Amino acid sequence: MSIFDDELQQLKGKLLKMGSLVENAIKTSIQALLDRDNALAQRIIENDHLINTLDVEIDEESIRLIALRQPKAGDLRFITTAMKITTDIERMGDLAVDIAERAIELNEEPILKPYIDIPRMAEIARGMARDSLDALVRGDTRLAMDVIKRDDEVDQLNLQVFNELLFFMIQDPHTVSRATRITYISKYLERIADHATNIAEMVIYLVEGKIIRHMAPPSENK
Amino acid sequence: MSIFDDELQQLKGKLLKMGSLVENAIKTSIQALLDRDNALAQRIIENDHLINTLDVEIDEESIRLIALRQPKAGDLRFITTAMKITTDIERMGDLAVDIAERAIELNEEPILKPYIDIPRMAEIARGMARDSLDALVRGDTRLAMDVIKRDDEVDQLNLQVFNELLFFMIQDPHTVSRATRITYISKYLERIADHATNIAEMVIYLVEGKIIRHMAPPSENK
Repeated sequence: MSIFDDELQQLKGKLLKMGSLVENAIKTSIQALLDRDNALAQRIIENDHLINTLDVEIDEESIRLIALRQPKAGDLRFITTAMKITTDIERMGDLAVDIAERAIELNEEPILKPYIDIPRMAEIARGMARDSLDALVRGDTRLAMDVIKRDDEVDQLNLQVFNELLFFMIQDPHTVSRATRITYISKYLERIADHATNIAEMVIYLVEGKIIRHMAPPSENK
Repeated sequence: MSIFDDELQQLKGKLLKMGSLVENAIKTSIQALLDRDNALAQRIIENDHLINTLDVEIDEESIRLIALRQPKAGDLRFITTAMKITTDIERMGDLAVDIAERAIELNEEPILKPYIDIPRMAEIARGMARDSLDALVRGDTRLAMDVIKRDDEVDQLNLQVFNELLFFMIQDPHTVSRATRITYISKYLERIADHATNIAEMVIYLVEGKIIRHMAPPSENK
């Protein structure tokens, strides 16, 4: 294995590391919501800098590889895609922080209702985040297509949560501040799924040269 | 001027073109909201593909420049930054589409209240979008810093809109569906301002090598 191959493997390792930190942040933020655990929520907020550090490291390492190794077309495309994708990963981390912040706010009031759809959405979104990065590192377009398909399910659940909470708010104005915060959490999860979808679309473009970004029907962005 | 310099100028031109399309989409989407003009809103949705086309063109042109011209460090950094930034510009375009969609939905019901803060937010966010790209193309870190400063104002207005509409919803449940949609529009504008801030932070990093991304206090992400 050449030095360059080795460096490329290290870059892929860092991408997966960043992805697993984000996956964990998503999972933990929902755990903090369900358990009404402020300390856990606080920990996600404090640990976000670890994700951000990797973002900068991957960018720097990518620039260095391009400048020093002058990689050929395929590798060059992989590296520039990695640089673009860190933005999506980093923002998924920010959204986990947003969930944690809303969870802390929700803990100031009594529980509105048991969460059913939110944990399901989180589970799907987390799986999409993981698989989109696996698809990138392995160049697996079938997995990438599968990620894109799952996005509809999350959009559907988000709409369902929105409609249900709208009903709560209309029935009883005292629920408005809590219900609104829960619709935000649902929306954050939907955006996490969107980021994973963007990554998956870039993987397909990277491998097949087929532009499917921007080609999907506009998502229900409620 | 060398061929490479010429190509670099063309790339900058495309970035600015993409930016001006987005700026226009933001402006028009708010116009459609204020005038309750469904046809205008529809036009924004239909024209989004022009922004998306430029996104792909800039990426392709950047890859080509890196592969063929093997640019030196400074130019290489500019080009990879451009590739990262197109994601932010493209998503600002998507958010203008989201505003247009909510405007169409709002037109199905009577007007809730005159819009005061929303047009102000839109004006600031639009200026931030324009200036962040001007800062990139000119390497102007002072302008970039100024963009970052303006983000607080948008966050503040977003919070104000949110609180005001929460009050409406609590007072009168019939306003819930309209008020919720307006809080979404406010949130979309806040996210446009966030994208401009991200671009501005990348400009500072590009020019000064100083990481200020992720260093700002977490924005009020309501």
